[in-house]
Amino acid sequence: MSIDAPQSRVLNEALRSKIMSAAEAAALIPSGSHVGMSGFTGSGYPKFVPVELAKRIEEIHNRGEPFKISVWTGASTAPELDGALAKVDAIEMRLPYQSDPNCRKRINEGTMDYIDIHLSHVAQYVWFGFLGKLDVAVIEVAGITEDGHLIPSSSIGNNKTWLDQADKIILEVNSWQSLALDGMHDIYYGTERPPNRKPIPMVAVADRIGEPYFRVDPDRIVAIVETDSSDRCTAFSPPDTNSQLIAGHIIDFLAHEVKAGRLPANLLPLQSGVGNVANAVMAGLEASHFENLTAYTEVLQDAMLSLIKCGKLTMASATAVSLSEEATADFLQNIDFYRERIILRPQEISNHPELIRRLGVIAMNGMIEADIYGNVNSTHIGGTAIMNGIGGSGDFARNAYISMFMTPSTAKNGAISCIVPMVNHVDHTEHDVQVIVTEQGLADLRGLSPKNRAKLVIEKCAHPSFKPALQEYFDRAMHGTTGLHTPHLLDEAFSFLPKWAAAHKAD
Amino acid sequence: MSIDAPQSRVLNEALRSKIMSAAEAAALIPSGSHVGMSGFTGSGYPKFVPVELAKRIEEIHNRGEPFKISVWTGASTAPELDGALAKVDAIEMRLPYQSDPNCRKRINEGTMDYIDIHLSHVAQYVWFGFLGKLDVAVIEVAGITEDGHLIPSSSIGNNKTWLDQADKIILEVNSWQSLALDGMHDIYYGTERPPNRKPIPMVAVADRIGEPYFRVDPDRIVAIVETDSSDRCTAFSPPDTNSQLIAGHIIDFLAHEVKAGRLPANLLPLQSGVGNVANAVMAGLEASHFENLTAYTEVLQDAMLSLIKCGKLTMASATAVSLSEEATADFLQNIDFYRERIILRPQEISNHPELIRRLGVIAMNGMIEADIYGNVNSTHIGGTAIMNGIGGSGDFARNAYISMFMTPSTAKNGAISCIVPMVNHVDHTEHDVQVIVTEQGLADLRGLSPKNRAKLVIEKCAHPSFKPALQEYFDRAMHGTTGLHTPHLLDEAFSFLPKWAAAHKAD
Repeated sequence: MSIDAPQSRVLNEALRSKIMSAAEAAALIPSGSHVGMSGFTGSGYPKFVPVELAKRIEEIHNRGEPFKISVWTGASTAPELDGALAKVDAIEMRLPYQSDPNCRKRINEGTMDYIDIHLSHVAQYVWFGFLGKLDVAVIEVAGITEDGHLIPSSSIGNNKTWLDQADKIILEVNSWQSLALDGMHDIYYGTERPPNRKPIPMVAVADRIGEPYFRVDPDRIVAIVETDSSDRCTAFSPPDTNSQLIAGHIIDFLAHEVKAGRLPANLLPLQSGVGNVANAVMAGLEASHFENLTAYTEVLQDAMLSLIKCGKLTMASATAVSLSEEATADFLQNIDFYRERIILRPQEISNHPELIRRLGVIAMNGMIEADIYGNVNSTHIGGTAIMNGIGGSGDFARNAYISMFMTPSTAKNGAISCIVPMVNHVDHTEHDVQVIVTEQGLADLRGLSPKNRAKLVIEKCAHPSFKPALQEYFDRAMHGTTGLHTPHLLDEAFSFLPKWAAAHKAD
Repeated sequence: MSIDAPQSRVLNEALRSKIMSAAEAAALIPSGSHVGMSGFTGSGYPKFVPVELAKRIEEIHNRGEPFKISVWTGASTAPELDGALAKVDAIEMRLPYQSDPNCRKRINEGTMDYIDIHLSHVAQYVWFGFLGKLDVAVIEVAGITEDGHLIPSSSIGNNKTWLDQADKIILEVNSWQSLALDGMHDIYYGTERPPNRKPIPMVAVADRIGEPYFRVDPDRIVAIVETDSSDRCTAFSPPDTNSQLIAGHIIDFLAHEVKAGRLPANLLPLQSGVGNVANAVMAGLEASHFENLTAYTEVLQDAMLSLIKCGKLTMASATAVSLSEEATADFLQNIDFYRERIILRPQEISNHPELIRRLGVIAMNGMIEADIYGNVNSTHIGGTAIMNGIGGSGDFARNAYISMFMTPSTAKNGAISCIVPMVNHVDHTEHDVQVIVTEQGLADLRGLSPKNRAKLVIEKCAHPSFKPALQEYFDRAMHGTTGLHTPHLLDEAFSFLPKWAAAHKAD
């Protein structure tokens, strides 16, 4: 899928001497290293070095010697990175987001440490020195210019920070990535540590405030590996009935807000989380009457690309392009068109509270479950096991103009309600959740006290098969506690619904 | 305690005709109104009109007729406002923060609705139209200039927004407030609704970006009431042993961070929550070696004033001055000195995520309890009853350079542990809490996975009498769940510690 490329994409003479094999490069990463890798939602991650590193670590482990590293990324990567390293038990600590089955298994069996961090916090924590020294950066780029600048690939994530902070830099120059990406990126170099921070000079989605390339200190580049391998390119499921219903409720709500004068006719910049439901909402917008939309988001998925293609979305800012194989083909084929309409930025900018609040982003994020009082669990199963992570949902939800969370009302073929009395892990508090949407309906919680939220969430969002149980819990809590601000039966908050469901099934 | 003042502080001729009694002004507020009142942590609230309104409502209720209003403020007020209105059951809905015993009782018995909102969100929600129309503003000011501008009093809170948005404006001109406050305020009029927002042009605590007075449309002023009555002026307890120990741990930590190169020698702007413990930390700083400090906070309490007086704190930005009677006397006596070192701003600016993050604020907030994994409950007792509210703690914690939460390790004379297995209400998630401090010690959670946080919180922060119980819970959770990312025993998460404590007591 690559376009015609010159023999080598390492155009800088001096750097060409650093080209080596992935195995040789992997050998430069010592045990105990903090390694900052590129990669965001399956895009732009290094594809060869982590695999060779995993092989090497497996051999070392087979000799009975210990070898682990810490892996810091932008967000989720792919089997060749998280998967390969987790399989051989090579990761001591992982941050700030993952979605890999092998990683998840390790974390939940207790053999890998994981820190789930707001995506906008990561770069600054490293600059502040809160996470220790970054030893090695392993960064995929699309090419190296004659004067030694780096052309970013399909995601930016924390790459700017990793390149600035790491002692050693390993580059993967991936000729699968289109060189025509050149010019799509906007790398802002104006960030500082307090007390030297300045306002970020952006007032619209389309504003370019940085440079097209990464700066890099050539002396710290220890290896360059030439690769030719595709991004993860996961296919999206076609929108199912539930996703279409969720999209429909959201579009009705947005239309209602426009009519009430609370949103402009072309809305405000859209943010859309990862995954199929979020993708379906974007697909729903394509069929809607909305025009001249913009997006200020983390990741650009298939349906958003389609929204650009049809002309409804005039400008999208993100930190990654994460497409299916089919959409990737279209993206590469029409990249001159898309380059005028897509800006890729560092995730400290795509997810920056200052910018999200200033632009007035409409945030739409998936969740695992919500409780009747409007607290949202985005990360945990059963209160103890991690699913993926909070990602950027907190950055967007807290600072959004309107913050929505969405999920089908049930999981496991209807056996489990995604609306519960009390979530057993809170990622987004009642203070940050304005709208909850399921296929059943939409609950607009703005301006409502906890009890009024509960009534509305049960009425609008709960699945009919769980409504009686939730109503019973709420009614009993209203009479079973001395605190009627947020009525709960603490002894039953986590167990009532499962017990009710089991009894109901036995009926 | 007032300084010499002219006969009337209403210097504008035209407006003088609107002077009337508090009872006459209160009669202009209809039932069902949304009323925006001034007031922030017991400062600058209207002192006469709410009392007269409460009287009127009580009479109406005695006739068997309904009469309720919604009360929006900056933050907490005083007995003459929240207390008087709550006593006569006059409040339908209250936001965004309260700390009044009568309000609390109403909320928790279910006869008053309460919405607990991040303080930085309130003004914009009103501008966006999310809370409905503001009908009446009741605002205390220190005076009215000849050309009709309003000299703010001892707090600013949301007054700018209330004055801009209300249909009818009632002013209380309080001659107890010093006219020498004139020049201490900085009212920023550059806020807009998206998509027209611009960067807020502040890069240092000392920057003045606005105007000294409130603008007001004279046609909407329906009443002016002349008052002469003091702010709440609650006394602070002298720092007790626990507070001093907490302050000591924080000061040691800050010194350690300076030594490690992670903080400048004069630190970064300090934010300190309300109450005795927060006040004690500031008192501790006065005895420390730190110099040239600044503060970017919501409320300036006694100890911070003292820090300014002794020259250690060179500049403080806040939205309210909330002092004891004794400190008030000093403040008024030396107001020319303090006016050069204190800037009072609207709370949408004092609590703005953009500015808190840019300035790199060191946030120090009290809490009710924390769990071993670093989730914080700032608002609820027993998971159901409200104490006060989240206030600005979320604005500061999420966007701070370093975010600390502090509490004595036990409450109720040692009967209850403030470190628990799982908090039964989450206001600050594990993603937003970096440091937990009790009199026992300080747990620095930066860069730690949940399990490592748990070990450290138990070790450093738990009271010795509860350590064995917490350790037992954690150990059993490590073996009693399939999810070892955040090990919990959901059936016992809320009940284990109380049961253990009861059994322990029976021993």
